[in-house]
Amino acid sequence: MDHLARLEAQVADHNRTLLPDLQSAYQALGANLARADIDIDRITLLVQSFKMAIPSWGVGVGGTRFARFPIAGEPRNVDEKLQDCAVIQRLVRCTPLVSLHFPWDKAADFRTLKQLGDSLGLGFDAVNSNTFQDPPGQTLSYKFGSLSHSDAAVRDLAIAHNIECIHHGEQLGSKALTVWIADGANFPGQQHMRKALDRYLDSMAKIYAALPADWTLLLEHKLYEPAFYATVIADWGTSFACAQMLGEKARCLVDLGHHAPTTNIEMIVARLIQFSKLGGFHFNDSKYGDDDLDSGSIDPFRLFLVFNELVDADSAGILAPPAYMMDQSHNITDPIESLMMSSREILRAYAQALLVDRPALHAHQDSNDVVMAVETLRKGFQTDVGPILAMARYRLGGAIDPVGAYRHSGYRAKMTELRPKAMIAGAGIV
Amino acid sequence: MDHLARLEAQVADHNRTLLPDLQSAYQALGANLARADIDIDRITLLVQSFKMAIPSWGVGVGGTRFARFPIAGEPRNVDEKLQDCAVIQRLVRCTPLVSLHFPWDKAADFRTLKQLGDSLGLGFDAVNSNTFQDPPGQTLSYKFGSLSHSDAAVRDLAIAHNIECIHHGEQLGSKALTVWIADGANFPGQQHMRKALDRYLDSMAKIYAALPADWTLLLEHKLYEPAFYATVIADWGTSFACAQMLGEKARCLVDLGHHAPTTNIEMIVARLIQFSKLGGFHFNDSKYGDDDLDSGSIDPFRLFLVFNELVDADSAGILAPPAYMMDQSHNITDPIESLMMSSREILRAYAQALLVDRPALHAHQDSNDVVMAVETLRKGFQTDVGPILAMARYRLGGAIDPVGAYRHSGYRAKMTELRPKAMIAGAGIV
Amino acid sequence: MDHLARLEAQVADHNRTLLPDLQSAYQALGANLARADIDIDRITLLVQSFKMAIPSWGVGVGGTRFARFPIAGEPRNVDEKLQDCAVIQRLVRCTPLVSLHFPWDKAADFRTLKQLGDSLGLGFDAVNSNTFQDPPGQTLSYKFGSLSHSDAAVRDLAIAHNIECIHHGEQLGSKALTVWIADGANFPGQQHMRKALDRYLDSMAKIYAALPADWTLLLEHKLYEPAFYATVIADWGTSFACAQMLGEKARCLVDLGHHAPTTNIEMIVARLIQFSKLGGFHFNDSKYGDDDLDSGSIDPFRLFLVFNELVDADSAGILAPPAYMMDQSHNITDPIESLMMSSREILRAYAQALLVDRPALHAHQDSNDVVMAVETLRKGFQTDVGPILAMARYRLGGAIDPVGAYRHSGYRAKMTELRPKAMIAGAGIV
Amino acid sequence: MDHLARLEAQVADHNRTLLPDLQSAYQALGANLARADIDIDRITLLVQSFKMAIPSWGVGVGGTRFARFPIAGEPRNVDEKLQDCAVIQRLVRCTPLVSLHFPWDKAADFRTLKQLGDSLGLGFDAVNSNTFQDPPGQTLSYKFGSLSHSDAAVRDLAIAHNIECIHHGEQLGSKALTVWIADGANFPGQQHMRKALDRYLDSMAKIYAALPADWTLLLEHKLYEPAFYATVIADWGTSFACAQMLGEKARCLVDLGHHAPTTNIEMIVARLIQFSKLGGFHFNDSKYGDDDLDSGSIDPFRLFLVFNELVDADSAGILAPPAYMMDQSHNITDPIESLMMSSREILRAYAQALLVDRPALHAHQDSNDVVMAVETLRKGFQTDVGPILAMARYRLGGAIDPVGAYRHSGYRAKMTELRPKAMIAGAGIV
Repeated sequence: MDHLARLEAQVADHNRTLLPDLQSAYQALGANLARADIDIDRITLLVQSFKMAIPSWGVGVGGTRFARFPIAGEPRNVDEKLQDCAVIQRLVRCTPLVSLHFPWDKAADFRTLKQLGDSLGLGFDAVNSNTFQDPPGQTLSYKFGSLSHSDAAVRDLAIAHNIECIHHGEQLGSKALTVWIADGANFPGQQHMRKALDRYLDSMAKIYAALPADWTLLLEHKLYEPAFYATVIADWGTSFACAQMLGEKARCLVDLGHHAPTTNIEMIVARLIQFSKLGGFHFNDSKYGDDDLDSGSIDPFRLFLVFNELVDADSAGILAPPAYMMDQSHNITDPIESLMMSSREILRAYAQALLVDRPALHAHQDSNDVVMAVETLRKGFQTDVGPILAMARYRLGGAIDPVGAYRHSGYRAKMTELRPKAMIAGAGIV
Repeated sequence: MDHLARLEAQVADHNRTLLPDLQSAYQALGANLARADIDIDRITLLVQSFKMAIPSWGVGVGGTRFARFPIAGEPRNVDEKLQDCAVIQRLVRCTPLVSLHFPWDKAADFRTLKQLGDSLGLGFDAVNSNTFQDPPGQTLSYKFGSLSHSDAAVRDLAIAHNIECIHHGEQLGSKALTVWIADGANFPGQQHMRKALDRYLDSMAKIYAALPADWTLLLEHKLYEPAFYATVIADWGTSFACAQMLGEKARCLVDLGHHAPTTNIEMIVARLIQFSKLGGFHFNDSKYGDDDLDSGSIDPFRLFLVFNELVDADSAGILAPPAYMMDQSHNITDPIESLMMSSREILRAYAQALLVDRPALHAHQDSNDVVMAVETLRKGFQTDVGPILAMARYRLGGAIDPVGAYRHSGYRAKMTELRPKAMIAGAGIV
Repeated sequence: MDHLARLEAQVADHNRTLLPDLQSAYQALGANLARADIDIDRITLLVQSFKMAIPSWGVGVGGTRFARFPIAGEPRNVDEKLQDCAVIQRLVRCTPLVSLHFPWDKAADFRTLKQLGDSLGLGFDAVNSNTFQDPPGQTLSYKFGSLSHSDAAVRDLAIAHNIECIHHGEQLGSKALTVWIADGANFPGQQHMRKALDRYLDSMAKIYAALPADWTLLLEHKLYEPAFYATVIADWGTSFACAQMLGEKARCLVDLGHHAPTTNIEMIVARLIQFSKLGGFHFNDSKYGDDDLDSGSIDPFRLFLVFNELVDADSAGILAPPAYMMDQSHNITDPIESLMMSSREILRAYAQALLVDRPALHAHQDSNDVVMAVETLRKGFQTDVGPILAMARYRLGGAIDPVGAYRHSGYRAKMTELRPKAMIAGAGIV
Repeated sequence: MDHLARLEAQVADHNRTLLPDLQSAYQALGANLARADIDIDRITLLVQSFKMAIPSWGVGVGGTRFARFPIAGEPRNVDEKLQDCAVIQRLVRCTPLVSLHFPWDKAADFRTLKQLGDSLGLGFDAVNSNTFQDPPGQTLSYKFGSLSHSDAAVRDLAIAHNIECIHHGEQLGSKALTVWIADGANFPGQQHMRKALDRYLDSMAKIYAALPADWTLLLEHKLYEPAFYATVIADWGTSFACAQMLGEKARCLVDLGHHAPTTNIEMIVARLIQFSKLGGFHFNDSKYGDDDLDSGSIDPFRLFLVFNELVDADSAGILAPPAYMMDQSHNITDPIESLMMSSREILRAYAQALLVDRPALHAHQDSNDVVMAVETLRKGFQTDVGPILAMARYRLGGAIDPVGAYRHSGYRAKMTELRPKAMIAGAGIV
């Protein structure tokens, strides 16, 4: 573990050089915000307390159906994935959680894995089941579905796997199971739509029944891919209806890339909050479909609008804090760099949303002064909160410039020596 | 009314010429279907029993925000609209219902209007309220919303109007109120999403309370337009959640053009059936947005897939028959011709869905024989059911060739004389 | 004209109060930029030199096919539209141009109109023809098309109208004609696609031939609306091919809302620059279709990326400056406020693009250091350039806070007295 | 080869049983068409003469980034792929061509491969280059692009590979090279858009220069995937402009799934025909993105509208026959069955388009009788041409029921014995 200690020393060095400029910028921003009666340190403190999870598969290089271009030094197993997550967390200090995926991350001994997490300062967020791939040696196949398969034997297999995931998670301290199924159809006529959903609900009820009392069952919908005509849990309406039928512990998870073009995602977030069914997020960005690009890279204003709903609900006292995770496919960047950059962009949206003068906004909304409402909301987004984000990292012991510090550290080069190149299961599938 | 009598005589003449060819084609198709153990007359009988409504505003020429190109002889008031509807019904015999829109169709005396309908052989389907336009002289405005407006006075006005619509409908024999609101926002920040929906639900609860025991309240969602950033009732998920909260008599209405690009509409239909909340349809076709084109003109296979769900549910005994209406904007055609052609295309999809060998389809679905399932479903769609549709019209007393008979009748020319050109309220807004 | 003199005095007062805060913010930003070797005053000067046009129809309240909600005090003729444009220009100082639309803005005497413009400090940008509406009394109709109509008589009428627009423009000092046609089809089969384009090209060649030597012919494409199945000039590919065939003076105009969902608009801009055919812009924003929302209100990053291409090409010395115009439909705001706010957001994107360190960006692009390229580009967008925009306005004699100054001035209230309410032709059609 | 002889014998047997019903149906349809003055045998002959290519990779099971579910008996090399193609051709008789992909299909000796093709009755259509994957052992990588890469060494490698593909093709009798590149960007800022296209054009000019005199260079555009922000050759506009710059032998290839949602693809086909740049097709169907579903399975009317343009241009004598290929990913079906079914659906669209009464259609279009134009076009689509397609197959020596005959033959079971399970390179990437 001493590369982490070494990293911290390097970060401290690096920070020393950067601190004076940061302090100037922070002070100037503070003065600016003070003119609007905003205490910059209050915002910084809130930013410091925001935490999100890294998906274990996200630290490997992702790919598409066309190709995957691996880089040297990628993690080859769950232990090495945790190591990479720990590096990220040391540098950005907002990612103390890891979200595992089974069977990809199946450990011989989960207590040992939990100890490794503890020693690295990492906790375990929601666990994820996988019934969209056939593990080697499995006789039955998920080719035509899993929890909604027409064959009860396949459904039972998928149910058992999900329950096993819960058991793994219990040993790790997880409190939620995220269920995304690829079940669907490539052709009109292939699948009986109502029967498929009935079977899904039956299967999920059995998984729900196996859930510990303090766990949440997160239902993740997706419009399409890998099913290209119809998907069993295709939209938030279906997800919401199922979560309602399953019970109190079932909630909906929103992946920002899982919607039809032009969908108003922030409104879906608002609706799920209103109906007490928002359970979690998979953050990423997209232009076309489930592109799984880095958060905030394509439409940063949309990300801000999502956080505007979260902050608004929180300030109204009605937000049950959802599970936050980055779910991205890093096909052409170093995943560690992308995850650090993305976590910062997520916090940027959060900080910008915190700056919005909500009483003023609500007053303009109530009086239908559209122009002033727009200007009030926009002001938050247009503020350069970079100094707040950097100061939050610094105050928590992280790096003022995470990518710079990471590159300086030579971590990837070292891993290249220690980890001979190897394909990792599930990299880039998100 | 004697133009209707004259029309019937003309139709009879016209039919005499066309009947021999129709009989040949019907016989050949019957022989073909018999080879697949399908009794053509059973299908024809089912087609004969399918009925849909014409929207009163649909018989006027529609327009866009850019222009409206009126034609001579358009109806100028509700009486004249009913006359046109009666012509359509005489020719196609599947449209014995009219759906009125208030205040556009407000009558001095609704009993007289009901008598006119009776005399024309027309009944009254769902009534529609209008809170997206300010009627002349109204002091309060719907500019910033109606049932979800931030001002209680505007909401009360909108509620009262809806309740008035119910009262009108009761005098006409209607059994449903369709509520579509244009409420929404053109800018992020303009509207508080949760508050707006809360207000909508409050308002709707009051309307619901005024509903007669045997009435249905139909909630119509729409993704966008005229609100171009967010719409209060934007998708089926919101519509469904609201219908659930409102109660048993509230159901969801599906307009085929009110969804995001690439949305699987037949799946929404399947879901609403499954959750016992499908209440009605607004039929039209679209390529881009709410284009309100003629039913079946852009994607006839999609229309077939919608009917496939309806017929499947019906054959399973779980379909509460929804209200069917054509909701189209006839910008460049004679509305009477478009409505006749469209009603035929809707029946075509229905007839094709009836032809599907459901036991075989289900068996292939259950065994995941994808190719045979696809072939089984497709066979229905690929059958040319034109002779069935024509024979159904003929047997009900309608025209074998409605457009030909209509053109031959000279009805539009006669109306041009009788109805000096005049703009009609609400034409083309759908 | 003394309301303008009064306005200037009010602005001066208003500015006095706001100047100290602006100077502090400007200084702080300047210090920040200086750390990156950027001279803030150089950026401010460039911003000061950027000019765009107001469309005459934009100062009236817009509407949709569903409704139009007028406000009091709207301009009722071209003279009053120019007055409103002059108010905007006094306050924001980046809109010294007006773009007229005929026949809506047809003047009895264009020399008088030109003098009015001169006296108000307004010049005349591209003129726009209108062949999507039938002017009162016109015997032939554009219902089925104009420049591409199957009937030569209709085409000749449309050609003559366009040539007349050129003549009007010559008297006003315009140097470009923008041609957008609504020609297209609502049904597959309605129109012969190749023949329609052939006829369009024939018609346009005749208009091109009538173009003065120093004029540009701007071709505006649009995917759909009011034609809902196919549009003759639907995409940039068709526009580009036609511009090529027509000749050197023909160029393509990009309206940000005229593309299919998910289209990469900045790439179209880059392509047209590369092929020497970019001629102009219609700025607005959109979420669904041609929503004509205020520029920068929905996806400000997209607007920045467009300006990134423009600034990059300009810095490479290959940008023939396009005609810039705001083309928005102000349905629920005071159009003067929306246009001021929008012009500022356009300048914001321009200023942010100017801040990008291009040599560094190019170096990262060349070496495929994706993360650093992204960070370099993003830095421009994340800078709050508000103080630069305000200072540019101030230095040019405009208002530090245009909306505040405008509201304070009571201009709309005064116009409400002077201009009894009246519908204006073409308001909101963009 | 005797499985082919055995297959032909089985087909003959199978056909004997089915022929009587086919003859009845054909006769009935013929009588129907005769009433519209159409000679069924003329249509059947035209259908018999339509040929399309099978992509070599299409006979393997495809997959997504999530999973691939292989079936037993898949071909493991180019020889076995040809065997499968030969089976398809024996059964459907419209697929006498194979399109190879290098390096996947690289043969030790291309003369031997050509002889195998000859012996199987298969010719070789366009060859395809692959610069979107790194072949094992290649030092330079296509990770950041190929023909447009910023590094000249990578570009040279990609150019050399394309020229090598031409050489392979020459030995096989191919007459075209299809170039699809995956080059693009996942992030705004990653790539310099103009420079990337300049480099692409430079590279393509070198490949063009290596083209034999009678060859065509087919440029294939695609909106996105695997690049998820911007793609160098993203749309038909770019493809067309590049084809123009490259020269006479460069033409555009249209893949039906490579466009933005709501794009009017048949209009793109019409435009490319009009500008003499239509070079070829990749047939498939899609609902969301490049779904690569079976042709005609999602939107059969769209496929018909594409063929309507082709037939119209052909009847006008201006169609340079394009290269037709099916480009589908068979993820859940037996690829042989899907390809047979798809080739039939393509022929269906062609036959339906042949039935359209073009003089009548043109007359209605010219006189703007929209309703009759629509009815005239639609009549072709609504005709059940199944008997024509089956008769065409039968008359050419193929199977009346290809899927039935194939299943009956036991071919896949036999291959399962002969071909132990193995992953094949490139399966399902289209």
